[in-house]
Amino acid sequence: MALQTPPLPLVQVLQRRRDRLAQLHPRPVVLWSGQPVARNFRANTYPFRANSHFLYFTGLTLPRVAIRLDQGQLTLFMDDASPESALWHGPTPTRETIAAEIGAIAAYPYQAVEGYLAEAATLPGQGGHNPDLGPDHSPALVEALVALRLYHDDQALGQIKAAAAVSMAAHRAGMAATPGATTEAQVRAAMEQVIIAQGMTCAYNSIVTVHGEVLHNEQYHHALAPGDLLLADVGAEAPSGWASDITRTWPVSGRFSPAQRDLYDVVLAAHDACIAIAKPGVEYRDLHLLACRTLAAGLVDLGVLRGHPEDLVEHDVHALFFPHGVGHLLGLDVHDMEDLGDAAGYAPGRHRSDRFGLKFLRLDRPLADTMVVTIEPGFYQVPAILGPARQSGQYDETVNWARLADFHGVRGIRIENDVQITPTGCTVLTAALPTQAEALEALVSAA
Amino acid sequence: MALQTPPLPLVQVLQRRRDRLAQLHPRPVVLWSGQPVARNFRANTYPFRANSHFLYFTGLTLPRVAIRLDQGQLTLFMDDASPESALWHGPTPTRETIAAEIGAIAAYPYQAVEGYLAEAATLPGQGGHNPDLGPDHSPALVEALVALRLYHDDQALGQIKAAAAVSMAAHRAGMAATPGATTEAQVRAAMEQVIIAQGMTCAYNSIVTVHGEVLHNEQYHHALAPGDLLLADVGAEAPSGWASDITRTWPVSGRFSPAQRDLYDVVLAAHDACIAIAKPGVEYRDLHLLACRTLAAGLVDLGVLRGHPEDLVEHDVHALFFPHGVGHLLGLDVHDMEDLGDAAGYAPGRHRSDRFGLKFLRLDRPLADTMVVTIEPGFYQVPAILGPARQSGQYDETVNWARLADFHGVRGIRIENDVQITPTGCTVLTAALPTQAEALEALVSAA
Repeated sequence: MALQTPPLPLVQVLQRRRDRLAQLHPRPVVLWSGQPVARNFRANTYPFRANSHFLYFTGLTLPRVAIRLDQGQLTLFMDDASPESALWHGPTPTRETIAAEIGAIAAYPYQAVEGYLAEAATLPGQGGHNPDLGPDHSPALVEALVALRLYHDDQALGQIKAAAAVSMAAHRAGMAATPGATTEAQVRAAMEQVIIAQGMTCAYNSIVTVHGEVLHNEQYHHALAPGDLLLADVGAEAPSGWASDITRTWPVSGRFSPAQRDLYDVVLAAHDACIAIAKPGVEYRDLHLLACRTLAAGLVDLGVLRGHPEDLVEHDVHALFFPHGVGHLLGLDVHDMEDLGDAAGYAPGRHRSDRFGLKFLRLDRPLADTMVVTIEPGFYQVPAILGPARQSGQYDETVNWARLADFHGVRGIRIENDVQITPTGCTVLTAALPTQAEALEALVSAA
Repeated sequence: MALQTPPLPLVQVLQRRRDRLAQLHPRPVVLWSGQPVARNFRANTYPFRANSHFLYFTGLTLPRVAIRLDQGQLTLFMDDASPESALWHGPTPTRETIAAEIGAIAAYPYQAVEGYLAEAATLPGQGGHNPDLGPDHSPALVEALVALRLYHDDQALGQIKAAAAVSMAAHRAGMAATPGATTEAQVRAAMEQVIIAQGMTCAYNSIVTVHGEVLHNEQYHHALAPGDLLLADVGAEAPSGWASDITRTWPVSGRFSPAQRDLYDVVLAAHDACIAIAKPGVEYRDLHLLACRTLAAGLVDLGVLRGHPEDLVEHDVHALFFPHGVGHLLGLDVHDMEDLGDAAGYAPGRHRSDRFGLKFLRLDRPLADTMVVTIEPGFYQVPAILGPARQSGQYDETVNWARLADFHGVRGIRIENDVQITPTGCTVLTAALPTQAEALEALVSAA
């Protein structure tokens, strides 16, 4: 029987994070939770989402709160609710209650934070300060935040798993709803219902589409045809702010056609190859290139590409069909810390490539224990890529355009899981939702 | 058989609106659609919602578009999508296509609008210009926009009705889901599923709560107890931007208790009284006061209040239990044109009262044909109001606190419909969703 350490109380988790920040960044730091954002008029706001760096050290989802972190000690700045606010928004905890809950050493009104900025590092844009500065304005703070948030403690991992469990249920609901649905919107609704019912939110705008070749498709009006593949990229975010991110692609009819199945299995092979080698020390970029080579090899086997997979990848031929990176960091943000530009995704001294096959790679670091990344290879037939490529004549030796026509209706496939790096390998946090074609067919048909 | 005029094509509707603007406001006007707003990092945006004034004249839901209106003629400013954008967001109509669709006389790149500002009126904050100016910066433009948007053409009414139909279906789904639900979130999910499945969005953050006494409650975690009333204020917004806004309050158990039923019927009487007299020329403020008197009379009948309804309302005693206004304008915004402050809600020369019973009244104008307003009286037991009121001793003559205790568990009731003013009276656009207590019981039990 394995001994299990009971989870730390949240206040101690937060204190540990603050202590580690103090080690990495001795200067004081000020962070803000942010303000609700108006949708069409001031009182009609989008659902408030607190800043992720702020959440990391406080766990607080309240707007109009600032904190000062100094040597691990937290000073809280927030206002008590006005009597009128109690009418419209109900009773809310007082400043003193919140201060005690999160382990603050002192608590002052919100505006008082302005008197604590002079010595403190902060991030541009936060609290309305220095909106025009880039993230390289506070390099020491950025470096410390990245060093902390790249690696997840047990509380973070628990929250990501909780979000992932709801996302998996949402995908199952989407598959079950497909036979009875006539539009993308209906499947999306069945999926988001699960997330809303669990008191979670969508970590990002859902993609639920029969046009998976549009990578960030946020339209849901297309009709579902029996011969379509439906690509669903939907992920829940826990109330604490921790995210999950899952993509599955399934046949509307409940049965992959042979052409769909062939290409699906190529994408799955790329996915599985990455999972098989992910472990501490492995370069994420090498996972990406492995996915590309596996995809290229599969397309060679199908007669769509000609040549050696290594050469095809070297010349970015795979990128005609897989133009994005194999994944990204996952944490409090679905692309974790992307607000810091490439400071989190790219190890110091590394920069994005100009190469077509690499420029959309969001992560280029060695993997390490407790990192969480997505693995999400795909196959797409994007007219905006394939049209010019064919016209150019440049790919006539490497692409068998006639053979590709046999796969004409297969527009977009992606398989995406959330993967935690462990001391000796990795754990697929979203493995309970199958990826095998037959298993997906069964889930669609089970409806 | 009644003759029905076929609906005008949208391009002609838009042209009529622009021509009417030109009559009311001869100077040129520049409006912007707006930009997507970041949620936690720049690429992770909230779902984009175009500015309502812009929508009114263009019907366009695209970000980063500006228009110049001059003598009814529209000049369009937008950029064609970049080739990279086609990869991520799919093919999009070109500037020329959009220009033709909405009847523009000329079309230029987005940034070119900067050269057309000098002579033009605009609204503060739009397009990032003059964010700090109040809406009284452009009084002539504000006046013209209000004069136009207060009264709805057939296209607008059709869109509001389409949104209302989906909202009604959502409420039916919420009632049907209640017996099987254990939390507020589950009922909310069942309601929003209907809205999402129809390709619509929520016009505002849903309120679905057993704590209806919190007027803008946006928490959904409470458990449902059999003795609770569930208050749901949920409204769909059509893809065109036109809103609806419905509240129903139903018993979790499917049966109102006698105490709940008594208070429910008081609120319903206030609602019905307003509907009965709403017609052109009637002051909306008088509807509000009628609702207050009807509510006061009902509470006198129940023994909760003592005195004459007129006197009770004169002294704001009703406002202890009904502290908000009886409704608001409805249109492209759920509180239509609230971005203009009280310029739309309050007729020229009128201002908000300081009186407790009137200061939250959002609308103080005579009703007129084709206006759409909500009628939404309520009864609430708000601790932040009733606690101090009781302690003050000030209401001991008019409130029977002992009798009120018999209604202890009835925390919040609201009944809200969307009402179109017609030449001789009004039409309840949301009448297909019943308000009678027995009818609601049947819808909950029918599950």
